[in-house]
Amino acid sequence: MYRTHTCGELRQEHAGQETTLAGWVQTIRKFGAITFVDLRDRYGITQLVFNESLNPKLDEQPLGREFVLQATGKVMERSNKNTHIPTGAIEIYVSEFNILNRSNTPPFTIQDDTDGGEDLRMRFRYMDLRRNAVKKNLELRYSVNRSARNYLHENHFMDIETPFLIKSTPEGARDFVVPSRMNPGQFYALPQSPQTFKQLLMVSGYDRYYQVVKCFRDEDLRADRQPEFTQIDCEMSFVQQEDILNMFEGLIKRIFLDVKGIDYTDKVERTTWEDAMWQYGNDKPDIRFGMQLLNLKKPDSVYVSKQDRVDLVNGADFNVFDKAETIIAIAVPGASEYTRKQTDELTEWVKRPQIGMQGMVTIKCNPDGTFKSSVDKFYNQDRLQSIAQAAGAQSGDLILILAGSEERTRKAASELRLEMGERLGLRKNNEFRLLWVLDFPLFEYAEEENRWVARHHPFTAPKPDHIQVMIENEPSIADANAYLSHPYANIKANAYDMVLNGNEIGGGSIRIFQRELQEKMFAALGMSKEESIHKFGFLLGAFEYGAPPHGGIAFGFDRLCAILGGSESIRDFIAFPKNNSGRDVMLDAPSTIDEKQLQELHINLRSI
Amino acid sequence: MYRTHTCGELRQEHAGQETTLAGWVQTIRKFGAITFVDLRDRYGITQLVFNESLNPKLDEQPLGREFVLQATGKVMERSNKNTHIPTGAIEIYVSEFNILNRSNTPPFTIQDDTDGGEDLRMRFRYMDLRRNAVKKNLELRYSVNRSARNYLHENHFMDIETPFLIKSTPEGARDFVVPSRMNPGQFYALPQSPQTFKQLLMVSGYDRYYQVVKCFRDEDLRADRQPEFTQIDCEMSFVQQEDILNMFEGLIKRIFLDVKGIDYTDKVERTTWEDAMWQYGNDKPDIRFGMQLLNLKKPDSVYVSKQDRVDLVNGADFNVFDKAETIIAIAVPGASEYTRKQTDELTEWVKRPQIGMQGMVTIKCNPDGTFKSSVDKFYNQDRLQSIAQAAGAQSGDLILILAGSEERTRKAASELRLEMGERLGLRKNNEFRLLWVLDFPLFEYAEEENRWVARHHPFTAPKPDHIQVMIENEPSIADANAYLSHPYANIKANAYDMVLNGNEIGGGSIRIFQRELQEKMFAALGMSKEESIHKFGFLLGAFEYGAPPHGGIAFGFDRLCAILGGSESIRDFIAFPKNNSGRDVMLDAPSTIDEKQLQELHINLRSI
Repeated sequence: MYRTHTCGELRQEHAGQETTLAGWVQTIRKFGAITFVDLRDRYGITQLVFNESLNPKLDEQPLGREFVLQATGKVMERSNKNTHIPTGAIEIYVSEFNILNRSNTPPFTIQDDTDGGEDLRMRFRYMDLRRNAVKKNLELRYSVNRSARNYLHENHFMDIETPFLIKSTPEGARDFVVPSRMNPGQFYALPQSPQTFKQLLMVSGYDRYYQVVKCFRDEDLRADRQPEFTQIDCEMSFVQQEDILNMFEGLIKRIFLDVKGIDYTDKVERTTWEDAMWQYGNDKPDIRFGMQLLNLKKPDSVYVSKQDRVDLVNGADFNVFDKAETIIAIAVPGASEYTRKQTDELTEWVKRPQIGMQGMVTIKCNPDGTFKSSVDKFYNQDRLQSIAQAAGAQSGDLILILAGSEERTRKAASELRLEMGERLGLRKNNEFRLLWVLDFPLFEYAEEENRWVARHHPFTAPKPDHIQVMIENEPSIADANAYLSHPYANIKANAYDMVLNGNEIGGGSIRIFQRELQEKMFAALGMSKEESIHKFGFLLGAFEYGAPPHGGIAFGFDRLCAILGGSESIRDFIAFPKNNSGRDVMLDAPSTIDEKQLQELHINLRSI
Repeated sequence: MYRTHTCGELRQEHAGQETTLAGWVQTIRKFGAITFVDLRDRYGITQLVFNESLNPKLDEQPLGREFVLQATGKVMERSNKNTHIPTGAIEIYVSEFNILNRSNTPPFTIQDDTDGGEDLRMRFRYMDLRRNAVKKNLELRYSVNRSARNYLHENHFMDIETPFLIKSTPEGARDFVVPSRMNPGQFYALPQSPQTFKQLLMVSGYDRYYQVVKCFRDEDLRADRQPEFTQIDCEMSFVQQEDILNMFEGLIKRIFLDVKGIDYTDKVERTTWEDAMWQYGNDKPDIRFGMQLLNLKKPDSVYVSKQDRVDLVNGADFNVFDKAETIIAIAVPGASEYTRKQTDELTEWVKRPQIGMQGMVTIKCNPDGTFKSSVDKFYNQDRLQSIAQAAGAQSGDLILILAGSEERTRKAASELRLEMGERLGLRKNNEFRLLWVLDFPLFEYAEEENRWVARHHPFTAPKPDHIQVMIENEPSIADANAYLSHPYANIKANAYDMVLNGNEIGGGSIRIFQRELQEKMFAALGMSKEESIHKFGFLLGAFEYGAPPHGGIAFGFDRLCAILGGSESIRDFIAFPKNNSGRDVMLDAPSTIDEKQLQELHINLRSI
């Protein structure tokens, strides 16, 4: 070893010992004839003192930032201790040193607040990874990994590796494919998830499976997606939904405890997909704060049970409200004293193309009990009071009302709610609120093709009560305009998402385990019998040899780490991430390959 | 949950309890009106008893092998206990049952000695995985995984994931490549190992890295190779070879303890590559038994120091020996009484094309002190005795002597030694002997190209003493016939292999960490400056920013598991292996992909 101790190890009680450290030169400071060097490694920073006797050697072999240095000397108690670092009570009086390697001037500073931009940091990722901020992220990632494995192990899950060179069965996202040299004209695919393999393992009787595993999706990359990403992938046999929910909220709570020291003792709240959509306008609500949406135009829903709620807004000659498909109100707590400038700015905010509303109505619930609205000329104080009451607004609140087409308005209201939560400081990085979202629709309607697509994936079972509906009805949609009245539109999936602070961190389902039902599902998704056999014959076959009831879940490991680390960006939690064009700018990959390689793989490039 | 207990859980003390089990029907036996069913799950087998009251339901819903069954009933102590299984003290008096899923007749029996051939078992791998023999292998694999992770964690190693979509830099084996849709005409490669990434992590200061990680090599598959395989991949900074050897023999010993209950306290033996080649004829010797090779024609080697050893065989008018480049003797203990038939059979064995010798000379060291040889007419008793002495043969041994060209004879002698070890029962499955092989040559000579290739890989450092030799000499080989006298031929690598029972289970090296030396290495391997920058510019760049001294090792996880499981075949230790054509016969992969996919990837198939 080039060292006897690490740079994070020495304390006052080591004073007097001889030590050898090795690490990187963080800073060099000269005071007269004495040189102070902060030496850094993974474990910490230790101060080295070079006295004047070493100056000739230092002149001959000058040190520089990020040089790799080995130094031997005596541990000495410091007179002026640095209480900010664990090694701050001591310093090393260097008797000998050895430059193990030199360094060019770093392209950016190796500090928490680096001066390096994203591009530069990615190109020199090996330097960026030295920064404490990034190192902490990777350490957190490892401790999440370790915690999850320990919990799953203690609960009798087995890590079983599934293959990476599999068969292309594009469903939803595009596969990355790999041309086979030994099988000309044929391709492997990289797995989008080990879904079918973990199901086969259940058929094989392995009962409780897990893997922390890379998955691949060739999608157009949105800001925070990666073509390769990691899942904590799990599956269990002989379970119902309730068993899965209990087991995996246990997993996340264990991770909170091990990684964040948070004892999350509350039972994880649950909501149905429908409730989430009504109350929050999206299926992964951030429940760290309230401000639920009030839909004023749905008299037949459980959320607006009385016709007179509609009458609150209708019939006041306010054309916008009268004609709107949907009107949604949000009561923003304590914001009644927003200035005209502030409400105007908010109105501009909802009118941005990303949100896309035409305007916004505001009602201030003044502390004196009066109301002041942007539509005062249509609504008198009594009506405003009734609306405020319906919206659950308190005196001092500001009610924001959006109106327009159903989907866009709901989306906009959801965004507005999150924005107001952010502005009011209600979305705290260090507060964690989990939520199970249940009872998703099994199918979504694909307008272009006038058929059903799987909302989750084709292996998700319907709720037990809905299996018969699926079996007894044909999937074909006679009248595209009336697709909502097709029996399939109301089939709920036996599926669940785990949401943390408004992010989906995991999702799964109880699976279909009967060949008949699986075939019906493939047919419902417009797959011919031949196609389903070609793609999934092995799974259909397996279901004929004693498949047990089973279900599972997969957690997005990158995202989970990012949220636990208090960040929005998964990229900072991946050692070597790719950019938005799927490029590794450090490696300069992807890149061209030799003609010889192409030839061996039996492929040509297309001219573009 | 569909069960209250597993099928491996119930004991005598549970007698009287109500229980619900779920599992697979292993066997059905009728005794009069009573039906006995062995119900199997991952944890064990429990006997169910169906009394006559259930016969109407059993008639209506008959059970079959591999049906998935849920059964509720009372745990009862058995009068005739089965001591072979942990649950043998009890049985369940079934009050209610529920067939959860049916099964076709299995394509082969789900037993240790199955009647299924390899092809059938692979096609129905999900059934094969139910067999106890295969399940035990995967359980062993998981426990090796778990043990390795625990040891590495306790020694401050961090699991850091490296990317799978990287850059193609073919060196040695072929890369699998992945066409990029977003970067037309460009390809990712799948990693042959995370080599350069783990080195970058050392440059980044991560100090101790590990990963249990899939790697990919597009090679023509030999009997027991897989295109995708798993490594336990490790790297450390600030270490010399000795540190690595100690750390990782600790890892393997921990695995022995955790997985096999073997307390391997002996220090792992070490040998140099040269010694291994001389004494065993190969670089991964099985040291569970002796029978070292004696080379009778190398007077200048340390192993045959005296000229008179050569004279033992030369000059006796035995042309074969006089002309042979190499003569190797093996003393087989206690085999002097082999019959003529037996020695003839052995001679035929070495003459098989796989071994390729012309013949074999035998000397029997009779218990009475006389010698009987197949070349008696050339060698008198005195000379035979001298040869026997030189070969270290005892009275009662049989000496086998091969002669011919250097490489072939050494290989054949190595094979013969292993064969004799096998025949004499000296290669015991349950005996484990580890060995470090050190001091490999850094380069091998590639005759076709008249240049050097890296024996290990281009990142391996020379022994510290040999660095100057490498820097000060030019790699070009002026006289191809005299390549052995080129200074590079004698440069030793700072590399090490770990050998277990004659199998290489791991290998690694201290790495080059200076740009200058790395450039020299690339040049030595015939790479132009441009090519080395194109392929490895990121690594050369990283070496300019403070790269620490570092080294590492990678263990072949599949192979390690197979040896620990007492098997020769890695395939039985992989959940979903591929066959020798790289096919997954269960999935039927690789397979063709759609024209649309090809088009999106900007490639065409070549006509063949």
